Amino acid sequence: MFKSEIYIQRRNRLKQQLSSSIGYSGIALFIGHDESPINFTDNSYPFRQDSSFLYFFGHNLPKLIGVIDIDEGIDYLFGNDAGIDELIWTGPQPTIKELGERVGISRTGGIKKFESFFQRACSYKRKIHFLPPYRKETVFKLLKWFRIVDITRIGDISSDLEILPSQKLLSEKALSSSIKLQPSIELIKAVVAQREIKTDEEIAHIEEAVNISAKMHIEAMRVAKHGMTEQQVVSAIYKKMLDAGASLNSDVLSNPSVSMAFTPIATTRGETLHNHFYGNVIKKGDLFLLDAGVESSMHYASDLSTTFPVDGKLTTIQKEIYQITLDAHKKAVLALAPKIPFKDVHFKACKTIVNGLKDVGLMKGNVDDAVALGAHALFFPCGTGHMMGLDAHDMEDLGEVYVGYDGEPKSEQFGLKSLRLAKPLKAGFVLTVEPGIYFIPALIDKWRAENKFLHFINYKALEQYRKFGGIRNEEDYLITETGARLLGKSPLPYHLIDGNSASN
Amino acid sequence: MFKSEIYIQRRNRLKQQLSSSIGYSGIALFIGHDESPINFTDNSYPFRQDSSFLYFFGHNLPKLIGVIDIDEGIDYLFGNDAGIDELIWTGPQPTIKELGERVGISRTGGIKKFESFFQRACSYKRKIHFLPPYRKETVFKLLKWFRIVDITRIGDISSDLEILPSQKLLSEKALSSSIKLQPSIELIKAVVAQREIKTDEEIAHIEEAVNISAKMHIEAMRVAKHGMTEQQVVSAIYKKMLDAGASLNSDVLSNPSVSMAFTPIATTRGETLHNHFYGNVIKKGDLFLLDAGVESSMHYASDLSTTFPVDGKLTTIQKEIYQITLDAHKKAVLALAPKIPFKDVHFKACKTIVNGLKDVGLMKGNVDDAVALGAHALFFPCGTGHMMGLDAHDMEDLGEVYVGYDGEPKSEQFGLKSLRLAKPLKAGFVLTVEPGIYFIPALIDKWRAENKFLHFINYKALEQYRKFGGIRNEEDYLITETGARLLGKSPLPYHLIDGNSASN
Repeated sequence: MFKSEIYIQRRNRLKQQLSSSIGYSGIALFIGHDESPINFTDNSYPFRQDSSFLYFFGHNLPKLIGVIDIDEGIDYLFGNDAGIDELIWTGPQPTIKELGERVGISRTGGIKKFESFFQRACSYKRKIHFLPPYRKETVFKLLKWFRIVDITRIGDISSDLEILPSQKLLSEKALSSSIKLQPSIELIKAVVAQREIKTDEEIAHIEEAVNISAKMHIEAMRVAKHGMTEQQVVSAIYKKMLDAGASLNSDVLSNPSVSMAFTPIATTRGETLHNHFYGNVIKKGDLFLLDAGVESSMHYASDLSTTFPVDGKLTTIQKEIYQITLDAHKKAVLALAPKIPFKDVHFKACKTIVNGLKDVGLMKGNVDDAVALGAHALFFPCGTGHMMGLDAHDMEDLGEVYVGYDGEPKSEQFGLKSLRLAKPLKAGFVLTVEPGIYFIPALIDKWRAENKFLHFINYKALEQYRKFGGIRNEEDYLITETGARLLGKSPLPYHLIDGNSASN
Repeated sequence: MFKSEIYIQRRNRLKQQLSSSIGYSGIALFIGHDESPINFTDNSYPFRQDSSFLYFFGHNLPKLIGVIDIDEGIDYLFGNDAGIDELIWTGPQPTIKELGERVGISRTGGIKKFESFFQRACSYKRKIHFLPPYRKETVFKLLKWFRIVDITRIGDISSDLEILPSQKLLSEKALSSSIKLQPSIELIKAVVAQREIKTDEEIAHIEEAVNISAKMHIEAMRVAKHGMTEQQVVSAIYKKMLDAGASLNSDVLSNPSVSMAFTPIATTRGETLHNHFYGNVIKKGDLFLLDAGVESSMHYASDLSTTFPVDGKLTTIQKEIYQITLDAHKKAVLALAPKIPFKDVHFKACKTIVNGLKDVGLMKGNVDDAVALGAHALFFPCGTGHMMGLDAHDMEDLGEVYVGYDGEPKSEQFGLKSLRLAKPLKAGFVLTVEPGIYFIPALIDKWRAENKFLHFINYKALEQYRKFGGIRNEEDYLITETGARLLGKSPLPYHLIDGNSASN
């Protein structure tokens, strides 16, 4: 964890923002995560806190609730202290009072105290701000607190619901039945405005994560050989991650100290964008696509991709396509700067790809028109990058329209609709750059059957690329006052292409 | 997956059981799991299906619903086919029709078809049986299907809830508002009766899992040295697990092919029963307690514990306590046989522990009385074992009272209340044997302050054991027609004690 001052500063800034954007009385709820059960209640996945909770209240522990009283300017942390049974099973745990102190909060209490607090806020018709819930446990808590569940119809189904009947004792009148469950746009905007600008201590943690995952990518290039399964490469990169975790010397180590930030993509079928199947046997001549990043001990993410030939050398046809992706990558990186809309960066990458594909005879016609109409999306059906921070897709839970579009509606065009970031960049943004070229047989067949973009796509020439796969390389960048800075060491295999150096 | 015949047989047996136990019209729902989000919707933990769904419907894939029409004797599998967007992101996926065929089901359809089916069943006032939901996503689906949520009060909060308004179009009268959300005791009992008896193909998978985790334990004994952190031992056992996964040669490999069945306990503070902290530095003379099992590629679990001295040799005081745990272990194993209540096996272990602790001067008085009153629970506050199968604590989601107690109420006595299995054993049960001795400072202090069991406990002599830690060794056994058989290879370090052989 950071020092308590960091969390105090973050919450104070949020309060300032909210009190200027919200003209009426309100409180902001930050609902921490519970354990997430695998196959029964007491067998949980490794605990991961909600990122906004982590950002403002620090603790990566279950069953906590953070509250900011916007009008009074007071912060609260709620959670139950462990009982004697818990001491036996989980060992001595810090009290809620101690947890509060570590993040600079003196007002703490148990969950019942929170529920009274919530009821009082409702009874005074105060606006209750909360972020969009993406775990059902959180939805469930909201349904319960806002009394949206018909408790008379619920039997012995869930320990969380069993405490509902006691709520009946609370004054029914105190709760307005007209309160609607609706995340707060004001709170979303304020949180995005704050979390999107990374501070120095955050950047250090992201770079730590980048450097760990760079080692994983280099290890994959070292071990991947034809005859192996993809699973064996995955095992090798997990081992590198474990080594990084084991080398940490922290007094707050828990499982996992360093973990995967997302399920790695490790495949010889790189055309499938989020391929989590590891069962293919690597064949001679295959391209291997690895998309893997880690979450640091402080829960900051990295997100890197590399594509490399398993035999160490690209074929002529692979080299041609590879060069195009690197050209697009460099174009995008050169365009990164404050005030530049990332949509423009994306279009630069798209146009570079169309130009390149024209050169090899796969596309034709006017480049600007092709990109404007979305013809390139046959080969590049996704976006050039996304925000990164406490999440690999930073703040994706808060809504892309706020995180990546400043509230503007997103395009519905195939391809462009998958661009997660479009808005003007600011110094302090951390984002990925990851243009790619993919040959997706099912998509090619669909478009050809529809005679789609016959003016731009040379379907006949495409035939020999059906089994090509896909290429994506991905690095992480910080937007600076003047441009952008590569974060950490890049594992990109620039050496595969003659005339490219390892530097940017 | 097993062959389709296995799943057909399992469902047919369930139908036979249910139609004899249920005197009225009904359907049984098996609600498959969704992906479980980590920090945003599209970033999920490794997918794990509900174990009862796996048992009867086989597929480890999200968003499926299995239905058994008890009266008509018909099985259904519901789930949506992938669209073109999903083809791009996840690659070609089998259709619901194909998924049905693989488990011997010809009646399949999308989720909307299921919802109509559900509504029709409600309109005919058919009893809808379901198992206790332990993931909130499942509770949520039930709230939605049974219309227990006040949909008029829900805004743009969840994509799952957004489909609720369309349900308004369904005939309101068709749904009885008197239907109460209550898991089906009949279904629970029928599922337990079937899943608790392991068949040969299940036993083979459990043994595979045991043997993988045995290697992990032996590796831990090999690598653990003073000066290391616990985290480094954890890394080493994860690597062994990865090696096992990487050596599999399956065409259905996905992440993870072999995984931890539960978060490993790997600690020098073994007195904390479920200690997940790995931050301690191992000191000379420490005992290291490892409790770790894996889930096989077919999702069967193992659950093994070993405790060993990090310097390879027990001190005299450690040897005395260690010998007592091994004696209790052997007593328990020798008692395993059909018709023997596991509670009796547990008491045999408890009495052996009390006898041993009397010998070393930590307990005193009448052994039978000490165990009957629960005085031993200061040192052994949990149970001697539990069922094992698709779950490390098999069917814990269905309720211990049915899985371990045949519907009898559990004791509320401290210690005994944590015994998960008490009922008479049957051939085909797979269970753990894991008596242990723990010195829990917080518990010792509490009991001494309360002057608890002064006739049985020698608190003064206990003083020198405050930092001892804990010892637990755990093996997995199959109950046979005549007794019990050890499953897989045991990693238990019997050699630590003179005169003990490695065999049982």
